[in-house]
Amino acid sequence: VDEFEIIRRYFARTPSDASVLIGVGDDGAVMRPAPGRDLVSVVDTCVAGVHFLTSLDPADIGYRAVAVNVSDMAAMGARPRWMTMALTLDKADDEWLDGFARGVFEAGSRYGTALVGGDITHGAEKVISIQVTGDVEAGKAMTRDGAAPGDDIYVSGTPGDAALGLSIIESGAPSGEHADYLVRRFTRPSPRLALGQRIAGIASAAIDLSDGLFADLDKLLAASGVAGEIELDALPRSDAMGAVVSSDDALRFALGGGDDYELCFTAAEPSIVDIAQEAGTRITRIGGVVEGAGLHCTHSGERYAYESPGYRHFR
Amino acid sequence: VDEFEIIRRYFARTPSDASVLIGVGDDGAVMRPAPGRDLVSVVDTCVAGVHFLTSLDPADIGYRAVAVNVSDMAAMGARPRWMTMALTLDKADDEWLDGFARGVFEAGSRYGTALVGGDITHGAEKVISIQVTGDVEAGKAMTRDGAAPGDDIYVSGTPGDAALGLSIIESGAPSGEHADYLVRRFTRPSPRLALGQRIAGIASAAIDLSDGLFADLDKLLAASGVAGEIELDALPRSDAMGAVVSSDDALRFALGGGDDYELCFTAAEPSIVDIAQEAGTRITRIGGVVEGAGLHCTHSGERYAYESPGYRHFR
Repeated sequence: VDEFEIIRRYFARTPSDASVLIGVGDDGAVMRPAPGRDLVSVVDTCVAGVHFLTSLDPADIGYRAVAVNVSDMAAMGARPRWMTMALTLDKADDEWLDGFARGVFEAGSRYGTALVGGDITHGAEKVISIQVTGDVEAGKAMTRDGAAPGDDIYVSGTPGDAALGLSIIESGAPSGEHADYLVRRFTRPSPRLALGQRIAGIASAAIDLSDGLFADLDKLLAASGVAGEIELDALPRSDAMGAVVSSDDALRFALGGGDDYELCFTAAEPSIVDIAQEAGTRITRIGGVVEGAGLHCTHSGERYAYESPGYRHFR
Repeated sequence: VDEFEIIRRYFARTPSDASVLIGVGDDGAVMRPAPGRDLVSVVDTCVAGVHFLTSLDPADIGYRAVAVNVSDMAAMGARPRWMTMALTLDKADDEWLDGFARGVFEAGSRYGTALVGGDITHGAEKVISIQVTGDVEAGKAMTRDGAAPGDDIYVSGTPGDAALGLSIIESGAPSGEHADYLVRRFTRPSPRLALGQRIAGIASAAIDLSDGLFADLDKLLAASGVAGEIELDALPRSDAMGAVVSSDDALRFALGGGDDYELCFTAAEPSIVDIAQEAGTRITRIGGVVEGAGLHCTHSGERYAYESPGYRHFR
């Protein structure tokens, strides 16, 4: 088995999307863009042992590798359309590839993203790099830098669940309804695509949560040149989180846990709550934007000092 | 130093291209496409020790990683416009990163390709994956599958030089005018962008040479469902190649050597020679397309059996 055979066997499916004129198998892919829209491009890499446990179900690894990119598209308010994949493999393992490809195509199909090309190489460890191109109404892409004093700060879903799910996987804790839910929040994230598209043009700034709520909101505030104040009592918490860990631990997961792929955004317009509701995703107001710099927390009204453990490579 | 600092320090240059509305630093990049053109997307990965010697000048590694993608764009007749880079690093080495980034931006600037986004991760070895998006006149992308019996087969430049250059690097042979020229053909390939754009719409099929002339032309013929006949006496040879190796070795490098990033293409229209000449790149007719399957060689008119050593991962 060689790279061409791997592509033929697992990845050369003819996209059903009529915008794909030439897909996998030539020197490049050819796509016809929709007129009058801007292009949006994102790329995200998962390294075995760093970004995913090698013991995970390969279908989950494939699904997740696509979903984390779709989440970046959601944070831009964009619609994902086409993806390319650079896959470095330590070995050609049929069973792994079969499951992995299944996960990639399942997520691709769910989020309307056709695999149009890629490159498969041999290396010391698995490295999965997926690049997604999509589009957005011209001039309507959401960025991180538009938050202004007076804006409200919102978050979708219940941040912290995915990190708790990962810790359940790592500790080999017994399963159960709550544990299964939390594990699934890690293995099968739900990028907030419909929400991102609805709030584009209304939210003043947006970011998706990959490194943790505190670290990512902090990045949004820094890019906007403003400060933020959040009240920790307002942080939304899942029933599963409440059932599995103490209130203090729940707070730590919610603020510092990564891999949620929820959206955090700011808006001046309170009607954004109704607009978001139409997307079918729970959003919660957790604080507000003020003049200054940094992210400041209160807990039941008292100042709460938080040191972000936000994950950074090479530290 | 962490991933964000690496991006800020080495890769967050503001693109001068007015089509880039949002570049490095947000969740995604936003670009405004030219109306009425199709998009073309390519991706190519270089793994340390597999695709490049770790001892190479990092500026050459960066330049080459961009150039091999630009070559795929040339083979599609497309114009490269924007690139994203997924970079996995074994360590954060300032000197290496500085040289590497210089090479990336030098090639990007030469070939009109702005770096708009990327992802930097930590892993066991360096993996450089660059994805380029460009455009082509709607409906004019060149593919591999249009060659028809009666077409002539052409190749640009003098294939084999890059592989000989690599073998000179590996053997640590003494330098000299010819050796330097050959080494440079490997370290600084010249993707045939102007040629690709001129012959798009005229050539019946095209491919770029990365795995060797025999292996790549064989792929073009297979995709087109035809056979090819080439006369080895017609293969163009550089003065440097002639000066450094025997005639037999020259033939082996020309047929089996990879990394040339020349174009091999077919055309029914003989005027393509004049059209190609306008691009300033030497092209040579090396044979013709016939009914059947496979690539057949003659040497001074005698049948010549060639076993392709074309590089394939996982063999």
